[in-house]
Order: sequence, then C-alpha cells, then structure tokens
Amino acid sequence: MSKLVIVGSVAFDAIETPFGKTDKILGGAATYIGLSASHFNVDSSIVSVVGGEFPQEYLDLLSNKNIDLSGIEIIKDGKTFFWSGLYHNDMNSRDTLITELNTLADFNPIVPENYRDAEIVMLGNLHPIVQSSVLDQMTTKPKLVILDTMNFWMDSALEDLHNVIKRIDVITINDEEARQLTGEYSLVVAAQKIHKMGPKYVVIKKGEHGALLFHNDNIFSAPALPLAEVFDPTGAGDTFAGGFAGYLAQTGDISFENMKNAIIYGSALASFCVEKFGTERIQNLSKDEVHERLLTFKKLTQFEIELT
Amino acid sequence: MSKLVIVGSVAFDAIETPFGKTDKILGGAATYIGLSASHFNVDSSIVSVVGGEFPQEYLDLLSNKNIDLSGIEIIKDGKTFFWSGLYHNDMNSRDTLITELNTLADFNPIVPENYRDAEIVMLGNLHPIVQSSVLDQMTTKPKLVILDTMNFWMDSALEDLHNVIKRIDVITINDEEARQLTGEYSLVVAAQKIHKMGPKYVVIKKGEHGALLFHNDNIFSAPALPLAEVFDPTGAGDTFAGGFAGYLAQTGDISFENMKNAIIYGSALASFCVEKFGTERIQNLSKDEVHERLLTFKKLTQFEIELT
Repeated sequence: MSKLVIVGSVAFDAIETPFGKTDKILGGAATYIGLSASHFNVDSSIVSVVGGEFPQEYLDLLSNKNIDLSGIEIIKDGKTFFWSGLYHNDMNSRDTLITELNTLADFNPIVPENYRDAEIVMLGNLHPIVQSSVLDQMTTKPKLVILDTMNFWMDSALEDLHNVIKRIDVITINDEEARQLTGEYSLVVAAQKIHKMGPKYVVIKKGEHGALLFHNDNIFSAPALPLAEVFDPTGAGDTFAGGFAGYLAQTGDISFENMKNAIIYGSALASFCVEKFGTERIQNLSKDEVHERLLTFKKLTQFEIELT
Repeated sequence: MSKLVIVGSVAFDAIETPFGKTDKILGGAATYIGLSASHFNVDSSIVSVVGGEFPQEYLDLLSNKNIDLSGIEIIKDGKTFFWSGLYHNDMNSRDTLITELNTLADFNPIVPENYRDAEIVMLGNLHPIVQSSVLDQMTTKPKLVILDTMNFWMDSALEDLHNVIKRIDVITINDEEARQLTGEYSLVVAAQKIHKMGPKYVVIKKGEHGALLFHNDNIFSAPALPLAEVFDPTGAGDTFAGGFAGYLAQTGDISFENMKNAIIYGSALASFCVEKFGTERIQNLSKDEVHERLLTFKKLTQFEIELT
C-alpha cells in the first residue's frame, strides 16, 4: 500500500450559499483531500495544525477513515484556522467574509518519521515556504509530488512559489490562476510555460467546465458532471486533488494514461462534494455510489465514432 | 443520399482580431453551414438571398462543393448583408461594428421544389418568422429539424421564436442564450425547460469549453480542442452546426448515440474554422486532416477506467 502525505489546512468553515448557511463546520484543504483520498486503498497522513478548541469528534472522523493524524499538531492555547465565505447566485463567484489564520499563521509542518519515505506527496494550498519545508523533510525522493496553490500566493509570495514549483511533478491550478501565473490567455500556451517552470504535468481546473491535463504535447479533457443544482462548491477543488492523488497512490502507476483515470476519479468525487454543505457528502459516500458516478462519467464522454 | 436544406445568411464579413483584419470577405451562417456539411456525403441546398454585387466567384466556390444554389435569390439592384466585428484580446467577446441587413431585411425564403422533401432541415440563425416559413414549405415532414438562434431574437421577437421552437427537434444555442431563454443558471435545468418548449434534443455550445447534448436524462459532453491560438472565431458555431447536420444527413441515423458522433464531427470541424480568417480553413480541408482531428478528439476524451 502506497503512503500518501497530505499537507494543508484543517479548519473551521462557515458557508453561506443561496440555499442556506452553516455554523462553523469542519473544513480545510487537507480535510477534503484526506476524505477524498480515503476512498482508495492508501496509507494517508495529514500534516497540519489546529487549536486546542478543535473538536475531538472531527479528529475521530478523520482517523475513522484510516487517516494517520500524528502529523497534526494541536496547539492547546491556540485557535484553529477559520474561513467564512458567501457564494453568489451563479455559485461561480464568492466573497471571503472572514479569514482568521490563527495557528496556521506560524505553521511549522512536521512530517511524521514513518511517512518521510512516502511515495506520493500532496501539497495542499498553503504558503509555498511551508510546502517547500515538507519536501525538505522527505528522506526518499517521492515518486510523485502534487501541488495545489492559488492566486493569493502569486500576489504575495511569487518567488517562493516559483521555488517550490521547480521541485514538483504535478501542479493543479484553476484557469484564471494559470493565466495569472504565466500572463498567457491560451491555456495551451499557459501549460507550456508552466512545464518550463518545472512540473511535467499540469492540471487546469475549470470548475463547471471540467479539467484539462497537459503533459508535453498530450492533452486530456475531463468534463465536470452537469448538475441541476450546485449546493456548495466549497472543497470541490481539494476533493478533486484528493481523488487524483488517492487513485495514483492506490494504483502506483503515474503514467499519463493512468493520470487520465485519476482525473476522472477526482472529477467524480468532486461532483459529490458540491451536493451538500461542507464535507457531509464526501464523508458519507459508498463504493457503489462512486462506481455509479464513474459510469455516468463514461456515458457522458465516451463515443464510438467510425471514421468513414 | 439524404437531402439537407440549409437556410441562413450568405454575406460579407469584415473581421478584426488581435492578429489582423480583413476586407469584406465571404461570410454568413448558411455559407459556413454549407461548407462544413460539404465534408459529408449529402445533397445540400442553401436557401438565402444576396445582392447583385455578390461575386460569382463566391457562388462558384459553393457550387464546386456540390451545394445546390437554386434557392439563393439574387436581387440585382440590392446589396448583400454585411457584418463587421472586432474581437477582443481574449477572443471570447466581440463588438459588432456594422450590421447592414440590406437584402436580408425583406428576405422571403423559397425552398426549391426538389428539396421540399428533404430529410434534414437546418434553420440557421435568422428571424424566427423566416425560419418558420421554411418549415411551412416542406411537403414531407422532415426526419429532423435543427434550429440555431441567438439572443437578438429573444430580445426582439420572443413570441415568434417560441412559435418556431415548438416545431423543431434540435436546438443549438450558446450557454448564455440558454440561460436567457429559460431564466435558469444551471444548464441542466435550462435544457429541461427547453425540452418542454418542444425540442427533444438541446445542444448547448460553450465555445472554448465545448458543447453539451441533452436528451431527457441523457447528457453528452464534448470538449473543444484546446488551442494555442484562436485566430478568428467567426463562423465556428455555424461550422459546428453544419458538421452536426451533415454527419446526421450522411448516416441517416438520428439516435442519441449517433448524435454524440455528430457533435464530435461538428466540434472537430469548428476547431479548424478558427485557425484562419473567415472560411479559408474550412473550405480547404482534406479528408485526412479531418480524420486526424477526430483521432485527436478521441485521445483528448477517451479513458479506460477499471472499476476496482
């Protein structure tokens, strides 16, 4: 069984959408990545930090999914990272209402000893220096390092971001961020430029329009599942990344052909994530439901053309 | 060989993009549809109107593609429809600089006698009353009627548009227009509402994000080919529609499964259209090039997932 190290936030979220609002609920990039990856046969460990008020119930939820939590530092007199956001009617844009970094502000990630030889490392969205620090701790060169990031770090820590991007194999980024990072409108040209920064594989997430995987001249296009209702998009990108990383860790096959499948698994899991608030849907998801959704993705995209 | 009636504009376009600009060149919805459909084994006839100044060279170009032109009325002392547009840097938005309807303002379409029993009718973007008039002239109920329209008619002739939409089988429409027509943001819900207006099949064009085909609970998602450079998007939607109609006319199979293939053919042809100004690329396109592009679409979308 492959080991998967996941670094990222474990947090409280408060979410408001046109369909309703939540109190402080379980959130954070590493949470979504871990829950999503837990649908695969992998040995995952989350590296993160929370405050003393973080409920044991949430930690139990994660460890019940067989996620190792020895890399989650609990700072007794600290508070957990808190994010609050408001989604607009089209669900494609949101306002951040509150960001309280709290313990995440001075997060010094420590990868547990027995995960420093992990085959797959998933660097969730965090300060690029924190992401680099995780790579520094690996005693064996990982088979695959995947990085997720966002425009915030391009604005505030571009040089650090470039330094970590040099060291990774796969970047997952959304379309606007790919354009910002490269100054190119065409996603094909943007991906070419990102290849030159280091990553051999570039995954561009396009929300309701799916995702593109680039590897040199090879391109794979995965759709998003067209949905009658998007209830809450929070965590969809992280769920996608967790499915992608989890599937690759389970299969141990990091070829382009298998990454296509990983993209489809990630997309399928993300399509569940948005059906309910927060982690609710992704934490209560049966194998049968996942299989059925994968068949839906097949029907959605596969065609049998005869070249006449 | 199936007969395909195409109604739409045959026109002059003057196009400016970040890559350059053209003088008045050959344009018009029916032109693009006809040229695109000419890549299939079909007996097409264009129903349109032009002015006396319309070059014989352009008419010859169309008839050399085996398109019947007996339904193109030439009004000696009239002028041909002229459109001029300016594309912005992102190529997804454009300003219309000039619209001179000219002879198109009083266009009274006459379907040639020997095409009134055509199996497939493609109603290109025109006033919905003109589109209806073509259907009135058919002596045999067509196997399939496809309609393309745009937001302009929703703003100016909504009741007429609803009246023709009732009578058709397939509508092709872009995402914003689908939202405008139905007042629904979700394309799934929008397609459901459009089904209730009449069309059993709804094709939603999403430009660089591909196209969706809806038929009751069945959905097919086709990607657009990710391109390093979009040279001129003019006519891409009509080229898509022409490929869709042409493939269905050639195969005579209007099942949902075969419509998937038609969508892919349309997408492949549209991906050529944008590579050069105007009709240049689509009128000089070999069978081999089309085959190769279809294989590219297969590689772009097909995956072999094992459900473990």
